[in-house]
Amino acid sequence: MDKSKIVEELKNSIRDIPDFPKKGIIFKDITTLLKDGKKFQEAIDCLVERYKGKKIDKVVSIEARGFIFGSALAYKLGAGLVPVRKKGKLPHETHRVEYALEYGTDSLEIHKDAVNPGDNVLLVDDLLATGGTMSAVSGLIEKMGGKIVEVAFLIELTFLKGRERLKGRQIFSLIEF
Amino acid sequence: MDKSKIVEELKNSIRDIPDFPKKGIIFKDITTLLKDGKKFQEAIDCLVERYKGKKIDKVVSIEARGFIFGSALAYKLGAGLVPVRKKGKLPHETHRVEYALEYGTDSLEIHKDAVNPGDNVLLVDDLLATGGTMSAVSGLIEKMGGKIVEVAFLIELTFLKGRERLKGRQIFSLIEF
Repeated sequence: MDKSKIVEELKNSIRDIPDFPKKGIIFKDITTLLKDGKKFQEAIDCLVERYKGKKIDKVVSIEARGFIFGSALAYKLGAGLVPVRKKGKLPHETHRVEYALEYGTDSLEIHKDAVNPGDNVLLVDDLLATGGTMSAVSGLIEKMGGKIVEVAFLIELTFLKGRERLKGRQIFSLIEF
Repeated sequence: MDKSKIVEELKNSIRDIPDFPKKGIIFKDITTLLKDGKKFQEAIDCLVERYKGKKIDKVVSIEARGFIFGSALAYKLGAGLVPVRKKGKLPHETHRVEYALEYGTDSLEIHKDAVNPGDNVLLVDDLLATGGTMSAVSGLIEKMGGKIVEVAFLIELTFLKGRERLKGRQIFSLIEF
């Protein structure tokens, strides 16, 4: 089966949930893709195909759904896995970054010893929406001296123009809505 | 290198953090294992070795650190991945289970369509402590008709006797403290 057909079927396996988490939002539910072992493997393999041979040292992924894609990808690539977590979850010394929510701000943390200067870093999350979170995390990795090879998403909601927020970095998404 | 030597080195790569999340607790920090690509692969491969050929249909793992081990394992086994999440995170119809915390209770949810009656289920989490969370989740899977092949952990804190809480189920942990 060719690649575009695989991606089309992956896209079709994602379920729309109207009005979640609130009225007017159509939530893209990936659990219907994940629970199908073959589809989950295909999704990861599409990403592996793209990054193998790219000498990725660290896959950095964001709590919690990002871990799902970051983990399998790091495993297959033989790269280290670095979790970016909500405030207070990581036990050692951290760098912290704030990012804007619709109302107010939230923050994410990464261990100071998680990325070394010069590390080739692949940033992974499930969804590119407005790009606010990933923009904050990208800045953090760059400040630590990591070289961001690419920022990868399973899904991109193109109408939210997250790519503009992330400009200057290589962006890849497997599935677009 | 033999298996026991690999496990010993994995164990040595886990960092102790005294007094986290609070005074008197020594937290087992797995991020030092995860960021080492070779060690992360070895940890997952030890689990793959144990479960390949066991016809696992679904790997069920618990937010958030459980996703890290459940995801890579599901990917390699070709099984579906089922996330168990904190209340309000899963968008479709869910079963919910409450479990006791030191003070009060918390709850976890699973999608009603995530596990089919008769599915061979492997339950995965990073840490077996008192076993309260996993005991609650195991009961949920059994109520849904899933057959729990085994409950697997990266780490078991044996002095907390979590196995007793989970009695009647097959338990496996890669590393014991």
